[in-house]
Amino acid sequence: MQTIKLTLEYDGTHYAGWQRQADQPTIQAALELVIGQVAQATLAVVGAGRTDSGVHALGQVASFRTERQLSSEEWSRALNGLLPDDICVRSVEFVPDEFHARYSAVGKLYEYRILNRPHRSALDRDRAWHVRKQLDQDAMRKAAECLIGRQDFSSFQGSPTDNQNPVCHLRQLSIRAESDLIRIEAYADRFLKQMVRAMVGTLVEVGLGKRTEASLQNSLAARDRSAAGKTAPAHGLYLVRVDY
Amino acid sequence: MQTIKLTLEYDGTHYAGWQRQADQPTIQAALELVIGQVAQATLAVVGAGRTDSGVHALGQVASFRTERQLSSEEWSRALNGLLPDDICVRSVEFVPDEFHARYSAVGKLYEYRILNRPHRSALDRDRAWHVRKQLDQDAMRKAAECLIGRQDFSSFQGSPTDNQNPVCHLRQLSIRAESDLIRIEAYADRFLKQMVRAMVGTLVEVGLGKRTEASLQNSLAARDRSAAGKTAPAHGLYLVRVDY
Repeated sequence: MQTIKLTLEYDGTHYAGWQRQADQPTIQAALELVIGQVAQATLAVVGAGRTDSGVHALGQVASFRTERQLSSEEWSRALNGLLPDDICVRSVEFVPDEFHARYSAVGKLYEYRILNRPHRSALDRDRAWHVRKQLDQDAMRKAAECLIGRQDFSSFQGSPTDNQNPVCHLRQLSIRAESDLIRIEAYADRFLKQMVRAMVGTLVEVGLGKRTEASLQNSLAARDRSAAGKTAPAHGLYLVRVDY
Repeated sequence: MQTIKLTLEYDGTHYAGWQRQADQPTIQAALELVIGQVAQATLAVVGAGRTDSGVHALGQVASFRTERQLSSEEWSRALNGLLPDDICVRSVEFVPDEFHARYSAVGKLYEYRILNRPHRSALDRDRAWHVRKQLDQDAMRKAAECLIGRQDFSSFQGSPTDNQNPVCHLRQLSIRAESDLIRIEAYADRFLKQMVRAMVGTLVEVGLGKRTEASLQNSLAARDRSAAGKTAPAHGLYLVRVDY
């Protein structure tokens, strides 16, 4: 048996997220179908993170175990030949049996894209959140600093969840703009359900002047989802990298 | 009567190009339908360039004349509210009656995007040409220099065409890379049919070592389409800007 690590890119627009569901197209189901065809066996694929419906990935990681013996180049060509055109394999690596895409992960990088201009975009319609009113990026940057560190992020956790541990170490929450595209990068050891989208939704409320920078401290301290801002839409979010 | 200039962005993936055609979805037809609804009259829209099926635009320009009196802000909101989500209006300007989107244009900027890496891309599948083998960008840059200037571009003109004048003044043909994305910018006073795609297809043959840099001179001199390289696919091309 060989354990295989896949790095994946996908356009989440037409999928009901990562996780297998009855009667809904999901990334996991599409992968398992194709890997099963190549491996000539039914098998389960583990993902590093369960991306929501509409969320994209530049570097999702998945792992599986197989008895099929192919080179990494052969796996890559076979999978990319069979996968739908909105999912692709960026790399195939042979890893030790202890490797587990989810439990072995030590850090994840997400990027959230906001298109900040009066008119909507045709090309980025499913790729960035369109916010019409001009955002105060300096206020957003100051507010973002309050969130950095090892903290209880219960106020930024979507429900329902079976997660018992609300503490994450958020190491980076940076905001940079290229013309009217604002990119927010978030790096942490782990993330709670919809945490990036809740943080971005809250930062946008700061950027619109609906919420003060200082209020973020109170939002965190409340440990209550209603104390923070709305959840930003899924289609602006990208899982960029998973570290092991 | 007021003449109106629109600057448009569109994702050309699901359209049979700019120009109105029977039984095919086109950008022009989609625009004329919606402008007709707002103007409450049947009218014709003129485009700066007839983009091919699958070609995108960041700054296509179109013009039309109407008796409907609305502010530019009202036009913009009404059109963006009615247009399909893969077409949008970036700006609305009132211009003198002499303005003609096609005949008044004095320059156009196109960008062609190549994704140069072994594996395909899920997110850029309809947005960039995937070239697997590593391209020699220095060779491509040297070859591109041969094409700069006021020249007869018959060897880079698609057929059929009713165009009588094959001379264009190509002012810029630059190649720059950001990681595995290569962007080729072409600026000229005018372009022949499929000229950017023919130039890019030929430059890629140089980049793959199938054609020498020096051969570009001969290709131009031949004034024969078969003397140059293949036409690059439509989905990597963007009409970026039209100057007046």
